[in-house]
Amino acid sequence: MKGILVIADGLGGRPTDYKGKTCLQAARTPHLDALAHRGATGLLDPVTPGVRPGSDVAHLSILGYDPYCEYPGRGVFEAAGAGLDVQSGDICFRTNFATVDEDFIVLDRRAGRIESGQDQLEAALQEIQLVSDPDVKILFRVSTEHRGALILRGEGLSANVSEADPHKKGKRVLEIHPLDNCIESRKTAKLLNELIEESHTKLKKIPFNVRREKSGKPPANILLPRGASSMPNLLSVNEKFGVRGCVIAGGALYRGIGKIVGLMPIQVEGATGGLDSNLNNKIKAALKALKTQDFVFIHMKGTDTAGHDHDAKAKISFIEKIDTAIGILDEKLDWEETHFAFTGDHCTPIDYGDHTAEPVPLLLAGPAVMSDDVDKLDEKSAQYGGLGRISGNVLPMLASLNNWLPKFGA
Amino acid sequence: MKGILVIADGLGGRPTDYKGKTCLQAARTPHLDALAHRGATGLLDPVTPGVRPGSDVAHLSILGYDPYCEYPGRGVFEAAGAGLDVQSGDICFRTNFATVDEDFIVLDRRAGRIESGQDQLEAALQEIQLVSDPDVKILFRVSTEHRGALILRGEGLSANVSEADPHKKGKRVLEIHPLDNCIESRKTAKLLNELIEESHTKLKKIPFNVRREKSGKPPANILLPRGASSMPNLLSVNEKFGVRGCVIAGGALYRGIGKIVGLMPIQVEGATGGLDSNLNNKIKAALKALKTQDFVFIHMKGTDTAGHDHDAKAKISFIEKIDTAIGILDEKLDWEETHFAFTGDHCTPIDYGDHTAEPVPLLLAGPAVMSDDVDKLDEKSAQYGGLGRISGNVLPMLASLNNWLPKFGA
Repeated sequence: MKGILVIADGLGGRPTDYKGKTCLQAARTPHLDALAHRGATGLLDPVTPGVRPGSDVAHLSILGYDPYCEYPGRGVFEAAGAGLDVQSGDICFRTNFATVDEDFIVLDRRAGRIESGQDQLEAALQEIQLVSDPDVKILFRVSTEHRGALILRGEGLSANVSEADPHKKGKRVLEIHPLDNCIESRKTAKLLNELIEESHTKLKKIPFNVRREKSGKPPANILLPRGASSMPNLLSVNEKFGVRGCVIAGGALYRGIGKIVGLMPIQVEGATGGLDSNLNNKIKAALKALKTQDFVFIHMKGTDTAGHDHDAKAKISFIEKIDTAIGILDEKLDWEETHFAFTGDHCTPIDYGDHTAEPVPLLLAGPAVMSDDVDKLDEKSAQYGGLGRISGNVLPMLASLNNWLPKFGA
Repeated sequence: MKGILVIADGLGGRPTDYKGKTCLQAARTPHLDALAHRGATGLLDPVTPGVRPGSDVAHLSILGYDPYCEYPGRGVFEAAGAGLDVQSGDICFRTNFATVDEDFIVLDRRAGRIESGQDQLEAALQEIQLVSDPDVKILFRVSTEHRGALILRGEGLSANVSEADPHKKGKRVLEIHPLDNCIESRKTAKLLNELIEESHTKLKKIPFNVRREKSGKPPANILLPRGASSMPNLLSVNEKFGVRGCVIAGGALYRGIGKIVGLMPIQVEGATGGLDSNLNNKIKAALKALKTQDFVFIHMKGTDTAGHDHDAKAKISFIEKIDTAIGILDEKLDWEETHFAFTGDHCTPIDYGDHTAEPVPLLLAGPAVMSDDVDKLDEKSAQYGGLGRISGNVLPMLASLNNWLPKFGA
């Protein structure tokens, strides 16, 4: 048996979204509704009722991990998503390039949002050797604009350190300090402070920044790490369920989450992680992947982006675009051999423009699913669904339907 | 007030079971349906959604124990079920008699499945004295065929040891080793290795085996322990709820679970734990027991057996046999003074032939139960039941309906 899980980021909404309806209620979704008719629906609390999750936490929980014990922090996902090969024990950070003056006062936290040429910044950072401990390796990768990911790899390091970014223009770059008394945290803080100083020394001189200054743009002359986290020892999807899976996601964070749980990232043409993403191509890539893989996780980001932008019409339109892609899936999928799950990782209502804790609709379909009498997929219809109201763990449920799930007890 | 809980093992199924229906949907169950009409129904996740439980774990959870903290492992239940008086601190094992050659190579893991005369094996084992620590007591009891249960009782023992059974013909009996560095685990491993050697020395010479060899049957010439577990400190049903209860079950495991939580086993004529079990007699015995006891737990195994055998017709037929027995219960029970619960401990769908994580129907009836609009008991009807979808803890719910449940907080 095969499994496919589609998560539409920030799918859920509120009746305040658009003319008394949620965006999902307002959207025309004939294909999702047809699947709701054949399958079963319910309400999913990504973590548990009353918990308002970040996307990373919500995804972990939906994939069957315990976010209270197994959440490593954002840095690990960003590093993995940026394409770095994260290993157990690595200390990972999100970073941004900023513009500072000679006294380390921040003039621009994003160095004017860099459009291109970031590889030159990457190359300059790779040259840095830390004198505090020359055995500690620095791995760095630019992701988008001023953003990047950093790994410190070596013996005796800790993620329990503060951050460098003052989050305000006109403030001095913060000195990193240990957040506990361990020798590892003190050592890591010292290494990071040295790295930040060195990044300024190196970056301010490179031709890329000289040219930027000449043309009146703020130079990317310092690296600010934050969100320290260490790679946890998570059981992979393969170790848990004995199956091979892959992840299709435009956004680096979601590719990173997939990689951390052992899913192989598949690159898809036109999959941008934005509202313009080519969802049909993602579905086609998933259908192709299912010929050799057991499980595919597809992430679609636009619903969340539109919610954060308070743009109901954009969210409705993206939901309809998802529905069209699901139509292709429905037509081509081998329904005798596959179970399908569709849900969101949280609500992103239009009025608030950020994540909320209300539950999201969940849809399961396939031969072993006990169907219910609901024939529409939205926040209201799902109240009457046969799945009831459940918390996280969608992948383990899919694994059970596919007879992959290991037994607890005898 | 009195309480009665009936668990039909592996009751739940999938729409793939039989002509697009689960076995429970396909079966004629007028008496269960009448109770569903008068009472309330819902979906029960034996542990939580997306957890696929063994029968032991599922029963503990349904009886109100936390399987993550209070599950002792299989050996304890087997020992208690076999009739041994398990005490706190005992190290318990499942065992089988096997046939080995002089080099301890396993020729038959089940010694040809022994039909009778196992008491002679039991007697031979009781004579063994362990020189590694003569104060450690060996308690042994045969259960069925080649199966038995072993207890090591003494100071400084641990259940954290490996097993002896190589689970394959032609392999050597495994040396037991400690699974941690504790002195208790090392001592227990040493005692077990001595016991295994001694079992061979004793058993190969007894007349029972000499006769077996003469008639061409494989001798039961070694004892192989596995599934080490230590007796936990569980609060009994009496300690939790202040009531006296009993267990009626053909299978040793289920009697064992009952005994571990303080329920008194009642022997019933014709209660075999198989498809041929006399369920009417079990119900009659329960009705009789309720005259002096507060609570009866009845276990019915055939539904699971038929599921494991991929035999839809046998499962449907056993469900109809359960329904007939429930009809007797319904007619004779003092409904003014009793609450009744009926459920399964997990699904055993016909196609898969093993446990799955999908929820099972739950039925509650009696004077304090708020009835719902459902008038049939099956996996689909229960989606609309008034109890919603809940996780484990059926006995505490019954205890509350009976006003037995202690308060949490003041």
